[in-house]
Amino acid sequence: MGNDGSGAPAYEALTQSVRRLIDATIRTEAGAGTVVAAKTHIDCAIEQLSESLMPGSFGVRNPFDGQPVTSGNVMIGARNPVAPPLVIHRDAGGAVWTEITLGAAYEGPPGHVHGGVCALVLDHVLGATAHEPGRPAYTGTLTLRYVRGTPLGLVRAEAWVERVEGVKTFAKGQITDSQGLTVGAEGVFIKPRGARD
Amino acid sequence: MGNDGSGAPAYEALTQSVRRLIDATIRTEAGAGTVVAAKTHIDCAIEQLSESLMPGSFGVRNPFDGQPVTSGNVMIGARNPVAPPLVIHRDAGGAVWTEITLGAAYEGPPGHVHGGVCALVLDHVLGATAHEPGRPAYTGTLTLRYVRGTPLGLVRAEAWVERVEGVKTFAKGQITDSQGLTVGAEGVFIKPRGARD
Repeated sequence: MGNDGSGAPAYEALTQSVRRLIDATIRTEAGAGTVVAAKTHIDCAIEQLSESLMPGSFGVRNPFDGQPVTSGNVMIGARNPVAPPLVIHRDAGGAVWTEITLGAAYEGPPGHVHGGVCALVLDHVLGATAHEPGRPAYTGTLTLRYVRGTPLGLVRAEAWVERVEGVKTFAKGQITDSQGLTVGAEGVFIKPRGARD
Repeated sequence: MGNDGSGAPAYEALTQSVRRLIDATIRTEAGAGTVVAAKTHIDCAIEQLSESLMPGSFGVRNPFDGQPVTSGNVMIGARNPVAPPLVIHRDAGGAVWTEITLGAAYEGPPGHVHGGVCALVLDHVLGATAHEPGRPAYTGTLTLRYVRGTPLGLVRAEAWVERVEGVKTFAKGQITDSQGLTVGAEGVFIKPRGARD
């Protein structure tokens, strides 16, 4: 099915199952016999899926079948089980936001999102607001300010462009939970020469 | 087995299989029938592992069986399939380093590590050098400077303490590949009141 794109829904359903499996793998307290039996199923699945593997990562394959190049992305990829995935909403002014539930797979301090996962989410949303369609930019610097720990659960991440100076786009963003701000961020994004106005 | 700790090797072997499964899920080009069959195996494994699940994330469970509280950590957890996992080496002076292969699961730009994953790895290693044993600290700020894209593959991350001023520990770090520096980082870590000298 890799040749006509019709398999994308099957791939995405597979990915959603693997996300649930990641959570169950971390949280299971099943006995050794059960764990070994589960591993046998997983090893069978790996063997089946490996009958045909692209040689490298998803983004560098030849996009012959309509599956977006971002399907393998660690934050938004519909085929990457590590991705929550983020669904990026964009308002008319170019600001972006997303709401996601971060569970056991993203833990750092007990019961809390790893501070580096907050950085990863913020890097992505700041990039999403700075990378306007047809005007790509790359991250120059990113600064995170940790106000308090972010409990696992539902969080909102948002970002917006503060100002543009020549090739530099200055973006800001934040993560909030039901109690307010947990992490703030500022980033400077650079338009490569080919993409300058 | 959750009650005597003897199951840790089975849990870790399971986790290693799930890491391979994540990679195969992203990279498979198998046909729809095969993908559906693999998903059936995975759903069976989820059902088996879910016969006994801890109520929350790994870090908040009652550590009754000797499994370290960090086993669920997204960067170093032996039971977290999202973790590469990082193995943190510490030299006599307190500097830390790790070498890891970051594959398809960590992709951002095609063929490259997501910039936010670089931030996540650096947050972790800077924290590891700042959090001395018995002297916990929390991240105040973290600044990343992106020098060039980090290709997927083997990378080295390292961090060291630059200086300590009162409750503040200033740490620096970097990610390098075979061609040199890709991302630099600076962080300020704060010792909470109870942990001050």
